[in-house]
Amino acid sequence: MTRTSTSVTPPPLQRVTSLDVSREAGVSQSAVSRAFTPGASISPETRRRVLEAAQRLGYQPNAIARSLVTQRSGIVALIVGELHNPFYPQALSQFAQALEARGKRALLLTHDPKRDVQETLDAARSYQIEAAIVFPTRLNAAPPSLGNVDDGGIPILLFNRHLPGHQLLSVACDNYAGGRLAAQVLLEAGARRPAFIGGDPDTSTHQDRLRGFTDRLAEAGVRPVATPARAFQYDWGVQATLHLDAAGDRPDAFFGANDIVAIGVLDALRTLGRRVPQEVSVIGFDNIDESARLAYRLTTIGQPLEAMVEDALRALDDPQLGARPRLHAPELIWRDTVAGSRP
Amino acid sequence: MTRTSTSVTPPPLQRVTSLDVSREAGVSQSAVSRAFTPGASISPETRRRVLEAAQRLGYQPNAIARSLVTQRSGIVALIVGELHNPFYPQALSQFAQALEARGKRALLLTHDPKRDVQETLDAARSYQIEAAIVFPTRLNAAPPSLGNVDDGGIPILLFNRHLPGHQLLSVACDNYAGGRLAAQVLLEAGARRPAFIGGDPDTSTHQDRLRGFTDRLAEAGVRPVATPARAFQYDWGVQATLHLDAAGDRPDAFFGANDIVAIGVLDALRTLGRRVPQEVSVIGFDNIDESARLAYRLTTIGQPLEAMVEDALRALDDPQLGARPRLHAPELIWRDTVAGSRP
Repeated sequence: MTRTSTSVTPPPLQRVTSLDVSREAGVSQSAVSRAFTPGASISPETRRRVLEAAQRLGYQPNAIARSLVTQRSGIVALIVGELHNPFYPQALSQFAQALEARGKRALLLTHDPKRDVQETLDAARSYQIEAAIVFPTRLNAAPPSLGNVDDGGIPILLFNRHLPGHQLLSVACDNYAGGRLAAQVLLEAGARRPAFIGGDPDTSTHQDRLRGFTDRLAEAGVRPVATPARAFQYDWGVQATLHLDAAGDRPDAFFGANDIVAIGVLDALRTLGRRVPQEVSVIGFDNIDESARLAYRLTTIGQPLEAMVEDALRALDDPQLGARPRLHAPELIWRDTVAGSRP
Repeated sequence: MTRTSTSVTPPPLQRVTSLDVSREAGVSQSAVSRAFTPGASISPETRRRVLEAAQRLGYQPNAIARSLVTQRSGIVALIVGELHNPFYPQALSQFAQALEARGKRALLLTHDPKRDVQETLDAARSYQIEAAIVFPTRLNAAPPSLGNVDDGGIPILLFNRHLPGHQLLSVACDNYAGGRLAAQVLLEAGARRPAFIGGDPDTSTHQDRLRGFTDRLAEAGVRPVATPARAFQYDWGVQATLHLDAAGDRPDAFFGANDIVAIGVLDALRTLGRRVPQEVSVIGFDNIDESARLAYRLTTIGQPLEAMVEDALRALDDPQLGARPRLHAPELIWRDTVAGSRP
């Protein structure tokens, strides 16, 4: 840790300030500030003079030093578990843009689901973050799990999941309502032997979608033929479908726990020579870009991502809005993989 | 900007230090440091005592304040233009993990291609970043373009692109070699009327892949039938293929400028009833997850992403490695969309 070094850190008093730059450039201090604020109103000529003066003096506008005074760093941590499901890059991109529109920035941290999320949060807090947004990871990890984290006084929001029985802020799609909607759509298409191909069974997304699905089916006197569950992954969608078929258990409809699972189901049905939607209907969840490809044209339950992201940032600004999960209504995206016409 | 406020910032001397925490917890200062270092060796009991003491005193380990002394924030900016091409989320995820393995963090900034990249860089620099990695955006944007940016003394690296005639660090796949390899593969499959479906024509990736492709074809006395170019997008791949067909200009092979373009080509050929690879061969570039789907099984030119990411971080640590583009050899990923057997 300790090293002999001859480099000397200049004492703080010699740090170049925006006042030095304004004098050097012959402009106001406010002009210096505006020159370093993206989108601020300033003439190209003034901006050029400020930048040249700043370069001569070695000045850097210092958001971080400022944060020590204001206690507002403008940095929000985004803690992501995995980026293989394209839903998360789409969400990440939305968050980064929405934060920037508010003059804030995203600190991206990846989280290994096998490790304690507290470690990742502590690491994030050392960068003076204002808030942290946690994207799904397995939440049944060894204690202390996310529900018991020491939040260090910083608002923490769970995105696209909630932890039953805990007081964390959370924003999610109403997955229970989405599960009911999927069941409704498949029932109207005439399904009598539908299967739910589950994701990670320990997640609230899996559990809520499954519960909504089976509740709505039960109201129509229908029971799902099978509910294998393992992972929110394409390969699992393929494998589960082939396995059900090999076991002679042939559903007349599939609800994939998310779009990449449903796309796996579609590819497996294609290799089995089963025609969609004439013989089998398939519906997914998320509405990722890939679900619109001509090879799939997947009918799916869409998450209102933009509204969810805006709501998450609002909730972080005002944690008094309450710790109950903030749920957003899903919407049916009607394409070509469910029999019949749009309900 | 100015506001009347009654809040008072505590003077710096009252800031809680790790020494205060070590006294409160009855442990060494080094134990406090280890308690806040992910992966450091410390007993769960000691860690608990430190965290409790830290919480009582309101202590936050302060990487940012430390950075003002060491001038090394440990923060590397990742500036991304768009995340619709799944290649970029995959690269982003790799970078975030590789940075974390080095004890560093990624600050994520999105860049609107219609705006000056200098603004985004200035914004990033205000967070005391150590370095910036810029992912492709349109590089022919209004001046001052990236080639003229004021780097403020921070190493800047361009990932997956290079700017001819400029001195920026850059790491990319050898796209020219990749273009040659694609031509070679299609020639061996018997193609005599191949088409290149281009991406954004102002990018080095498009230009180098096209040049490699046409050079290798020329050596075999073959000229591409058409080289429409517009965008690295799925819809464009579909549209370009349908348009060539409607014009009666039917290539016997396609090289998509990237995988999502090639996947668009495959979907268009499917709607046209042209069989792949019996009647038409198709090859892509990138090897994104989606190219392995059973509905596509796209033969493609893979980028060695992991090696590229490691090399980029090495180059940033030692900018003396030189400003010439650091190129990585692409590799053929053989699947089912090119006729014949693996060359």
